[in-house]
Amino acid sequence: MALFNRQLCLESRPMGVPSEDNIRLRCTSLCRPGPGQVLIQNLYLSMDPAIRGWMSEKPSYMAPIELGEPVRGSTLGRVVESAHPDFQIGDIAFGLACNAWEDFSLTPAEQLVRIPANPPFPLSYYLSIFSPVGLTPYFGVLDIAKAKPGDTMLISAAAGAVGSLAGQIARIAGCRTVGLVGSDEKCSWIVDELGFDGAINYRSCTDLTSAIAEACPEGVDSYFDNVGGEVLDAALLNMNNFGRIVFCGAIAQYNNEDAVPGPFNYWQILARSLTVRGYMAPEFEGRFAEAREALGRWMSEGRLVFAEEVVDGLENTVEAFSRLFSGANKGKLMVKLRDISEPPPTIDQIREAVAQELSHA
Amino acid sequence: MALFNRQLCLESRPMGVPSEDNIRLRCTSLCRPGPGQVLIQNLYLSMDPAIRGWMSEKPSYMAPIELGEPVRGSTLGRVVESAHPDFQIGDIAFGLACNAWEDFSLTPAEQLVRIPANPPFPLSYYLSIFSPVGLTPYFGVLDIAKAKPGDTMLISAAAGAVGSLAGQIARIAGCRTVGLVGSDEKCSWIVDELGFDGAINYRSCTDLTSAIAEACPEGVDSYFDNVGGEVLDAALLNMNNFGRIVFCGAIAQYNNEDAVPGPFNYWQILARSLTVRGYMAPEFEGRFAEAREALGRWMSEGRLVFAEEVVDGLENTVEAFSRLFSGANKGKLMVKLRDISEPPPTIDQIREAVAQELSHA
Repeated sequence: MALFNRQLCLESRPMGVPSEDNIRLRCTSLCRPGPGQVLIQNLYLSMDPAIRGWMSEKPSYMAPIELGEPVRGSTLGRVVESAHPDFQIGDIAFGLACNAWEDFSLTPAEQLVRIPANPPFPLSYYLSIFSPVGLTPYFGVLDIAKAKPGDTMLISAAAGAVGSLAGQIARIAGCRTVGLVGSDEKCSWIVDELGFDGAINYRSCTDLTSAIAEACPEGVDSYFDNVGGEVLDAALLNMNNFGRIVFCGAIAQYNNEDAVPGPFNYWQILARSLTVRGYMAPEFEGRFAEAREALGRWMSEGRLVFAEEVVDGLENTVEAFSRLFSGANKGKLMVKLRDISEPPPTIDQIREAVAQELSHA
Repeated sequence: MALFNRQLCLESRPMGVPSEDNIRLRCTSLCRPGPGQVLIQNLYLSMDPAIRGWMSEKPSYMAPIELGEPVRGSTLGRVVESAHPDFQIGDIAFGLACNAWEDFSLTPAEQLVRIPANPPFPLSYYLSIFSPVGLTPYFGVLDIAKAKPGDTMLISAAAGAVGSLAGQIARIAGCRTVGLVGSDEKCSWIVDELGFDGAINYRSCTDLTSAIAEACPEGVDSYFDNVGGEVLDAALLNMNNFGRIVFCGAIAQYNNEDAVPGPFNYWQILARSLTVRGYMAPEFEGRFAEAREALGRWMSEGRLVFAEEVVDGLENTVEAFSRLFSGANKGKLMVKLRDISEPPPTIDQIREAVAQELSHA
């Protein structure tokens, strides 16, 4: 069996939602790990809206993906060769935003996290509930919003992966939770299945500001914002004095290449003595174990509902990714490249593939 | 000696800068305080731009001044009669936006703040450096920006009353301070006279973002924002991770009747894990004494430069007030009605004046 690496590479910078015109499948040769590196065979790819940002040229908290390079992302896989003493062949490990949409990733060992042998949860959890998707709402709700019993927390994109967890964690913390979603079906889902106290379909209501006021009769103490834009403007007009805005995302602007203005009601931040705090999970890296323990416990107690949607096959990745932006997905979206029961390539196969490639060079 | 109250009353709503056609001197009789009230003989009137707003008909955060009523304002005076146990005859007290341009004000005791006997500072301080003009930058720099030695703090409207104090307080806290101002003359003033480490004329520089980067080679740890708009956008692109933005004002939008968008670089709040915090001085009311002690001490040590301009005589009030709008004043403008060494009316004189008035009625 010829062994090579299939990679989804960024061919051109997308305008709007990325398509297969922007991202092409290429077959490339395999490389063996250099000192300190580990070769991972990917089992799961994580589909995250942030990846869209890295496809643009404008600098953000991470450098743009270079044209021609595979699309950067978080993956979970198994070690097939290692040049670092902490990783052995057969170990399962994941890497956040350091691997790519490809069969094999070559990764510096210090960017990988090994999963304990025989984990009590499905492997996919490590890219979903235990990844930034769960860690981000955990710290956003508890540390940034400083959720406390009796608070009203408003959550945008509340049927999304982060938003649905934010609302449930806020509820565990004793908050009254109201979610903003894009369909009546999602309204029912977050209230009936996730235990939100209220839900608003922002697409169908005529006056979002009034709709929030009605759903939050005591005002909004904290707003967990994944969206930005007009929804943020409506939320600002409902904030209680000294309220907190957790700035976790701004999905409304990710596919917009033009300059996007900040909220028109920015003045309310002063008028209501609000705090707006941007953050990302790595700020709390020292407490990830605490968070994973709590999230895992809540899952096993049935207090957290967390939907996963797993699409099969690298060849379906671009289409799957585009669904993040049409609202078609429900829960954390991942692409499964292969099952763990499928035998991994042996070290001899890898060496042979690399040797063949070198002989062609 | 006949005892009466001279009042400057609003006769008509001004178009543009108020003149003596709009505000007339009237002599009215004295009233004795009802339960809970205090009769104050005013020593100083505070001239504040906000008063112009109350002369208009459109509602703001305070009701408009009624036609025929004396012009509302902040004053400092001495108690000449009291119907509240907390205030004794001879006490010195001030009231913010609850008294008026008149010799005597009748004020609910809870709106007055008593000054300690034999205050170590000039009485005028209580309407200038000890008013929100000094309290706002004090708490903004120390509590909101959390200024600490070695930080770089950027300040907009740095030659204004609040901005000039913010920069000086930040410097006392050990920060490197860079001010944004609107003229080269102001640049020289804040560096040479106020001790700012750097100054940028935002009107004359071609690329404000680069100009800030050059003046703040280690980035900006906190930005004290009085301005909003384009200046805020340029500041956002220079913030260090985990930086703080003190949202104290947004002068850029005050005269704009259209909807004004928030910063185009709002996304940077997330990308750089920034905190934006709106606030107003009353949030820190419980610590005003601490702030006044510190501000007064810094003034007496010569570490704070804060200009006052005092005009003599109630009859010169309208002309003095108009100078706020021509830019002719330099520093905090006040009108002095009488010196504290001038003997106050006795309680018997007041009672006689009121009794005479009642017998005429």
